[in-house]
Formats: sequence, structure tokens, C-alpha cells
Amino acid sequence: MQIGLVGLGKMGGNMRERLRNAGHTVVGYDTNPERADVNSLVDMVEQLDRPRAVWVMVPAGAATQHVIDQLCTLLRHGDTVIDGGNSRWTDDEKHAEELAKHGINFVDAGVSGGVWGLKNGYALMVGGEKEHVDDLKPVFDALKPDGPYGFVHAGKVGAGHFSKMVHNGIEYAMMQAYAEGWELLEKVDSVDNVREVFRSWQDGTVIRSWLLDLAVNALDEDHHLEKLRGYADDSGEGRWTVEAAIDNAVPLPAITASLFARFASRQEDSPQMKMIAALRNQFGGHAVEASKK
Amino acid sequence: MQIGLVGLGKMGGNMRERLRNAGHTVVGYDTNPERADVNSLVDMVEQLDRPRAVWVMVPAGAATQHVIDQLCTLLRHGDTVIDGGNSRWTDDEKHAEELAKHGINFVDAGVSGGVWGLKNGYALMVGGEKEHVDDLKPVFDALKPDGPYGFVHAGKVGAGHFSKMVHNGIEYAMMQAYAEGWELLEKVDSVDNVREVFRSWQDGTVIRSWLLDLAVNALDEDHHLEKLRGYADDSGEGRWTVEAAIDNAVPLPAITASLFARFASRQEDSPQMKMIAALRNQFGGHAVEASKK
Amino acid sequence: MQIGLVGLGKMGGNMRERLRNAGHTVVGYDTNPERADVNSLVDMVEQLDRPRAVWVMVPAGAATQHVIDQLCTLLRHGDTVIDGGNSRWTDDEKHAEELAKHGINFVDAGVSGGVWGLKNGYALMVGGEKEHVDDLKPVFDALKPDGPYGFVHAGKVGAGHFSKMVHNGIEYAMMQAYAEGWELLEKVDSVDNVREVFRSWQDGTVIRSWLLDLAVNALDEDHHLEKLRGYADDSGEGRWTVEAAIDNAVPLPAITASLFARFASRQEDSPQMKMIAALRNQFGGHAVEASKK
Amino acid sequence: MQIGLVGLGKMGGNMRERLRNAGHTVVGYDTNPERADVNSLVDMVEQLDRPRAVWVMVPAGAATQHVIDQLCTLLRHGDTVIDGGNSRWTDDEKHAEELAKHGINFVDAGVSGGVWGLKNGYALMVGGEKEHVDDLKPVFDALKPDGPYGFVHAGKVGAGHFSKMVHNGIEYAMMQAYAEGWELLEKVDSVDNVREVFRSWQDGTVIRSWLLDLAVNALDEDHHLEKLRGYADDSGEGRWTVEAAIDNAVPLPAITASLFARFASRQEDSPQMKMIAALRNQFGGHAVEASKK
Repeated sequence: MQIGLVGLGKMGGNMRERLRNAGHTVVGYDTNPERADVNSLVDMVEQLDRPRAVWVMVPAGAATQHVIDQLCTLLRHGDTVIDGGNSRWTDDEKHAEELAKHGINFVDAGVSGGVWGLKNGYALMVGGEKEHVDDLKPVFDALKPDGPYGFVHAGKVGAGHFSKMVHNGIEYAMMQAYAEGWELLEKVDSVDNVREVFRSWQDGTVIRSWLLDLAVNALDEDHHLEKLRGYADDSGEGRWTVEAAIDNAVPLPAITASLFARFASRQEDSPQMKMIAALRNQFGGHAVEASKK
Repeated sequence: MQIGLVGLGKMGGNMRERLRNAGHTVVGYDTNPERADVNSLVDMVEQLDRPRAVWVMVPAGAATQHVIDQLCTLLRHGDTVIDGGNSRWTDDEKHAEELAKHGINFVDAGVSGGVWGLKNGYALMVGGEKEHVDDLKPVFDALKPDGPYGFVHAGKVGAGHFSKMVHNGIEYAMMQAYAEGWELLEKVDSVDNVREVFRSWQDGTVIRSWLLDLAVNALDEDHHLEKLRGYADDSGEGRWTVEAAIDNAVPLPAITASLFARFASRQEDSPQMKMIAALRNQFGGHAVEASKK
Repeated sequence: MQIGLVGLGKMGGNMRERLRNAGHTVVGYDTNPERADVNSLVDMVEQLDRPRAVWVMVPAGAATQHVIDQLCTLLRHGDTVIDGGNSRWTDDEKHAEELAKHGINFVDAGVSGGVWGLKNGYALMVGGEKEHVDDLKPVFDALKPDGPYGFVHAGKVGAGHFSKMVHNGIEYAMMQAYAEGWELLEKVDSVDNVREVFRSWQDGTVIRSWLLDLAVNALDEDHHLEKLRGYADDSGEGRWTVEAAIDNAVPLPAITASLFARFASRQEDSPQMKMIAALRNQFGGHAVEASKK
Repeated sequence: MQIGLVGLGKMGGNMRERLRNAGHTVVGYDTNPERADVNSLVDMVEQLDRPRAVWVMVPAGAATQHVIDQLCTLLRHGDTVIDGGNSRWTDDEKHAEELAKHGINFVDAGVSGGVWGLKNGYALMVGGEKEHVDDLKPVFDALKPDGPYGFVHAGKVGAGHFSKMVHNGIEYAMMQAYAEGWELLEKVDSVDNVREVFRSWQDGTVIRSWLLDLAVNALDEDHHLEKLRGYADDSGEGRWTVEAAIDNAVPLPAITASLFARFASRQEDSPQMKMIAALRNQFGGHAVEASKK
């Protein structure tokens, strides 16, 4: 089928290639003309037959809002917009309502797969009306991995991004699990070769996983991760997961601990630990260290 | 090769079968005569040619200590004892020293695989002297999964059980990760079918793993886990992991949160939350609820 | 000075009394006519000389919004509205802007003191323009405790509620600290009399505090808190504190753990621990317990 | 009454002064002759009338063990040893048994008060037989604060150190509570003067405490704690509290989070966050930073 694709960065570019490999016609637009198939959103829309499907793959927030605002005026009744970016699920209902005023359908798609998606396929978690989702089946089939898994129609509008968000929350805690175990193994004398321990775990254990395979890859490249700084960014989904949990009074101790570990990793010096040092000095005369600055 | 096997419960019995399927001669002893091949440890030892290898697969603590005490007197210089049970790594050095006084070698083996090990093979993490480990290679090869993974000589005596203990600590936090995500997804209205979301994650996602496959199995058997009580035991390794972390000043927030969640799951009513309720009532006149008892 | 007071519940009623004891003229309005001094907001406003000060002490959210909407039309240029309720700090700027369109000033006041405030005074954390805050000094002086502490002009509009919110976040973790310690002491055999241990801590220790005094009161009323259920509500500020921390990438492990402990205390059975039980059964054949329902 | 005092460091020296101020006869011994009243433990014991009381105030572990070993041979039937150091409660029963073989009584005393104890008195948590504790009442009365609080006979041998250990665990989480709140307040723009917010909390609030007073002192000395490094040691009791909780299956999320925050504060770079960075790079191509070394 035909599909418009807005945003041809690392993710969008690879998705265009995977869609074309499956025989679909992709008309891609990007603000960077070197990546784009057309010069403008208008051109893209004009090259698509109605009812059109336009997949938006741009950064969450202002950029996505801007594209959707434009599509409201460019698309027509019966067309469908798919937001495949990392939008917060709370934006989905707003976008759906805005588009609905113009008779345009909305589907949200959480996409997992990163740099491996082009080869292995992208896992897709989709939210929206059943008929809108069904119409897009050929596109989803082309993007998803071969085999029985990797696609779900999770529920109403917002359910796709919500599911993807929870996926990322789980990812945070799984990564933290391996990271904590690795640090402890590296710390003790009796274990000679932590890398080989990790490698051995890839079969027969309860904790075998794709993330474990990646950990082994990383350790093969840098045996004790000496080249890296212990610094981790977060891209929003972890924060939103904790916020959704708070809204729903669900305790998420492991996922939240993982998020906080990332926050702390980005601090040169911990303000709260300055206060701990100050209090210990006040009541017990315990020594303090001078600020590193 | 020949091997003595002490303890023929769920794990030991399956391991005997897997060893025999690989062509090894196993002389098994168990206090339950229905499972045993011989009537006594003495008989077992007599049926083995020297140098003997005896694999101990009984509960950690007193039971393992009792068997090792007996083997000190029954075995001879050059024989080897393998502790494949869930012993705490701190016991290994003690056992090794005790046996060394009699010229008997000691190897510790952390074993993962549970009820799936007979079919898929057992992951083995082994500690001890290189020559003792090398001599046992045929046994390890028979027990481990086919393929390149599932066995590691992790380091000195104790390194096997230490690695297995950390494996279980990681396991705690990974399980907690999926559990937290599942509860949050079940709680929100927009996601219709959490079971299908989990199923879809089995390919193309960052969080695909064997534990995820098991979660899907569990949800297929009981769609919303309504038949189960939210109650989880712990078998020691999680506690030991946290204790080892404290000894080594390594922060383990996610693994520890997972352990504490299990502790809390076993309380009918939380004493500490009684104190919270009492304090809220004292300063703010907030309502309290009567004890359930 | 004269002041209008909207909302005469447990907090507002006591504040009226404390203000009158200090010689101020309070015109109180409440939707419950038995508590009110006047029949309507209109009456209240008419009885006050200009420039008027109106203290709003009603539940956060819709109720506060409703009163402020009405005051926009009833008050005049140069009058001042003080929101002393538990509003989220993010509402303050909205309220300030809305009132500013009518030339009405806005001050936010976080109020601590609970049922003890009438006697001991209320701690006040205030946000707003310096001149608006200064004009209200007589009112703040009457409400606050005697002595040098208990009042702060914390900063801009919103700073009062933000400071009070953080106060409550700290309160959560302090309560949790005592609660955890109490549970552990109650659990061990060697300590005979936990209540007397707590009582003794009221002097000479690092952990003496007003909350500790309240804990002793509570234990004197119910020696082992046997009459209470371990169930704790939360009134919003704890959640907002964690959300503010996430917005600012500040790790709050102890405060968040305290919030999650409250969430868990309200669950009859823990969904996430059902998943843990299910997974343990899947990989290890570990026994599960039937749901309590 | 007469008392021998072994160990005249910061704590012991001040305790000698407070005991003498109360009219007691203290014979103090220290390995540093400049502090000592006598030249040897033998001299100290000889100067005391029977039945003797000897208070041991030396570092926990080997030093305390060494003194107790010597006292076993120097003291006689009916004499009493008090361990007032920071011994782990599990050592108390061992010491009591060792001394009992010589007919010597044992009492353990957890002591709080730090550098403030000389002036304000030391809070004492005591474990042991009632008659042994009663005989020492004059000493305890001299050391404790004036007024009704600050002393408790908590239970059997070990109960004193156990109660003091839990006191310190609570202290960790209370300090963490203030520290987290302080960091969050410092981070936001709307709050101008965090120091004045803390100062104001000293009356009328739920969170007023001695630790809060100390926090204000610290902020008065260094308004934003800019001179300090965010680095905090731990002296053992926090670790033991978590270990005791694990032994008793009591969840301690806030206290443990506080302990882990200290561990993390002492790491130049976090090994576990290196693994997080490595994994993010592996699956998503996310940028990493080079090690600081």
C-alpha cells in the first residue's frame, strides 16, 4: 500500500527501507532535503491516493504537535495519521480529538527495535479504533518481525504509547538488574572473569535475554567497561511510567530506583549527600571532605 | 565417567537421568530408599573407582554439612567433592578447608535450570582449582545445555556459588520489573488486553527474554492471575546478594527493592504501616481503620 | 486587621478562632450556614473595608478554583486573595494570573499544624510579591507560633505551596523511618519493651523530634498498635513531591519508598506479587497460594 | 560510686568528665598515657573496690574483644563489665558468655549523644540482667540527660546495642529525608531562600526535630553547602540494621535507600551506570561519555 512518512532520521529512515523492501510505496518527507523524497508536506500529501495514511516519526512534543497541526489542514475526511514517535500517551487523546474535528482518524504506535529494527523488525504496540488499525495491517506486517510476535493492538487511542512506555519502564529495571549484578561480581576477588560469567548465562539460566546478549557484546568490546563514564541519560518514558504509576497508586519500587540511579549518575556532586555530610559533622564531629569544585 | 550423586530430589533425580543419557555411570544415594541406587554412602563410595568424584545435591546448610562431614571419613586423598546445592558462598571455603585436611578436593557448582533443566540442560557456574574443574569436564558437559553457553569456571573456590547467587539476585529484579509493568498495565482502562501486549513483546523488543516467555505461559493459564495470591517466598540467594553488596559497599537499589517486596507480600498486615496510620492520626486527626484481626 | 475567611472546616474554624484571639476581625463564610458568619460570599465581601484580604481555606482543586472564580468578580483592584489550602503549586501561577486580570493580588500560603495549630500556632510558608506579603504581616503573626520560627516568605507565587509540599514529602520519609525501626524492634526477641525504647529516645538522641513524641503518645494509647490496620492514605503532597523531583531530575529514594509503602498498604492483595508467584512457579515449580478472594 | 573506664577518646573522655561532675570516682585507662589516670588495666582494676564496674569505651570489634579478654583474667566473680562502644549486638552474647565463665556480669549500653553529650547528657539504651542494670543506676543517672527521658533498660543482653543500632538506622533515613527535600528546594527557581524555609520549619511544623536544628546550623555556616563534597561515610550500624532486617524478613525501604545513597556517594564513577550506558549504546546507539579517568 501507499504511505506517507514524516521524519526520516535514524528510525524513520530505516523504517522507510524496511517498508520498501516489503513492496510498499513510501513517500517520505523530512526537513532535511537530503533525506526527503518530496520538498514539502503538501507535496507528500498530493502524491498519496485517498484515503491516505501518514506515519509521523518525529520527536515527541512540539515537533509532533507541529506536524499534526499541519496535517489537520492538509488531509481530508477518512485519512489516517499514525503517530509512531515517542509521544506521551496523554498527548494521544488530544491529537485524536484535534484530528477528529477534520474527520481524520488517529492511531498511536509505540515502536521498539532501535538500531536493530531494520534487520530484525520493529515491535509495534498500537492504539486506536479497530477498523483504523485493521486498514493499516499491511504496513504493520511489513514493519514487525517475522513470526508470531511483535505486534499488538493494545486498546483504545493511547494504549499503544502507554504499552510502549511501560515496556521502557521494564527495560530500565532489567538493565539496572544486570548492572547491579555486574558491579557486585566485579567487586569481589573470588570471581576472576565476570565477562565469562555473563557469557555463560546466555543459555540454561533463568535470566537469559536479549539484553544479556547485548551486555556480553559490550563486555567483549571493553572487558571492564573502563572506557565509559557511568553516566546515563533518560528519554522520558521512564519518568512517565513513574508518573502514571503515581496517578494510579501503583508502587513501582524497582523501576523508580532505576530512574533515580540515572538521575544521580548525571550529578557531578550530590547536593543531598552534602547535607548528609553536613549533618554528620554537626552531631558527631565526623570529618567532611572539601567540595571538588 | 563414574560419579557418585548424593541427593535425588527434584533436581538431583533429573540430573542423574541427564548424566546417564550422556553415557555416564551414576551411583546415586538418597535417604529415601525408593530413589536410591545404593543403601548407604558407604556403598556408594565402594562402588566408585578412585579417584572418585561425588556430587552433593542436598539442601544448603545443615544437610550439606552433614554429608560433607561423612565424606571426609569415607573418601581418600585425590578424590573430589562437588557441592551443587544452593550453599552460601561463605560455606565453600570452610568445606574446602575441611576436606583438604583429608587430601580431598572441593569444587562448588551453582546450578540453574529448575524444572526445565532435564530437557534444556543446566547452566553451571563453577569455582575451584583449574585441575579439579578440568577433571570434571565430562560431567559438566553432560549437564550443561548444548551449544556454546551454559558453563563457566568462574574463579576460586566459592566463585561458583557467588556467581549463581548474583544470578538469582538479578532474577529477582527482572521478575519485579515485569511484575511492576504488568500491574500498571492491568490498572489502566485504555489497555484492553495486557496478555496480548506481553505476548507481542516476545519479539523485536528490548525486553524479550525467557522470563517473558514464562510470563506469557502463566497468563495463558490464568488470564489475570486471579487464582493466585500475591505471595512470594524467597530461598536465600536474594538475601545473600544484598548482604554481599553491603559487605562490599555496592548499592543494589533494584534488587533490594525486589527482596523487600517479597517480604511485604508475606505479611497479613504491615506493622510499619500501623505506625504510619497512628502518626497520621496523632498529628492530623486522620481516620484510621480497625485491625483486620 | 480585617480579613475574610472562606472555608470553616477543621482547619479554617480553628484559624478563625486563633485570629480573633489575636484581636483581628474575621468575617467567615462557609457553605455550611451553621459555621458561617455571613450568608454568602457577597455578604462577606461587603462587610470588609477596601483594600480587602480574603483567605481561602477550602479543598484543593475544583473547590478552590470555584471560590477564586467567584472572587474575581466580587473583589476589586488592590484587594488580595490568599490561598491557604493544600493546592498544588502549579495551580498558584494560574490563580495569580486569573486574579491579576482584575487587578487582584495573590499570595499562596502552605499551612502546617493540623489539629495542634489552634494551641501551638500554624507554621506558614508563603509565596508572592513582597509588598503583598508585608501587608498581611499582622495576619501571619497571629497565626504563626510564638517565637522566632514558623513563618517564611519563601519566594515568588507558588513558593509557599512548593515549600509546604516538600515539608510533607520530608514528613513521609521521617514517619517511614520511625515505622521501619519500630517494626524491626517489635520483631526481635531480645528487646522486651519497644515502647519504652521509643520513650527514652525523646532526649539525648539524634532522632528526637515532635513526630517521635507523637509516636510515644500513640504507643501509650495502644502498646503494640494492635487495634489499627496497617493502612495509610495519602493526601497528594507526597505524590506531587515525587512528580516535582522527576521534573527536576532529583533522585528522592527515601521519600518515594515511603509513598510506595502507602500505596501497597491499601492493596488487599498485590497484583505484582501474583506475577512474581506465577513466574516462580513457571521456572522452578515453586508452590503458589490460592487467591484470598 | 566507683567506676573503671577503658578508652578515653572523644566519647570516653567527655563521659569521664560528666561522671566526675556528678560526684563519681572514675579511674580511667587509655593506651595513650596522656589521657590515662593509671598506667595499665591492672592498675585500674587494683584501684577499684569490689564488686567492680568497668565501662569499656573502645572501638567495636578487635579492640573491644581484646579488652574483654584481658578483663576476664583481671576481674573477679561478681564484677561487671559494661560495653558502651558501638559493638554489633551479635557480639554481646558472645562477650556475656565469655565473661560468665569467670563469674563476671555483662551489660551492653548503646550510647547516643556525640559531641553534644557532655553538655546535654547521653541517651543510654541498656541490655542485661535486671539486677546488674539496677546496680549501675547511679552511673546511668549521671550520664543521661536531666529529665524523664534518655535511659531505657531495653531487654536482655544485646538489647541495648540492638536498640542503638535501630536508632542509627532511623537516623540515616531522617537525615536522608531532610537531604532530599533540601536538594529539591535548592533546584527550583520559585523558592528564593531555602535556608530561611528550613529555619522557619523549626516551630509549628510536623517535621521539627533536633536534626532540623542542626541542618539550620549547617546552612548558617555555609548557605548552600558549597564548601562540602557530597560524600558520606557510614560507621556500621546502618549496615547492621539492614542485615538484621533481612534476617527477620522486615522490609526497610527508606533506611536501605539511605544506606545505598551513602555507598554511591563514595564512588568516583558508578560501575553499574557504566553498564547502563553500555547497554543503551548497544540497543539504541545512544551516545556514551568517555571515562573520567
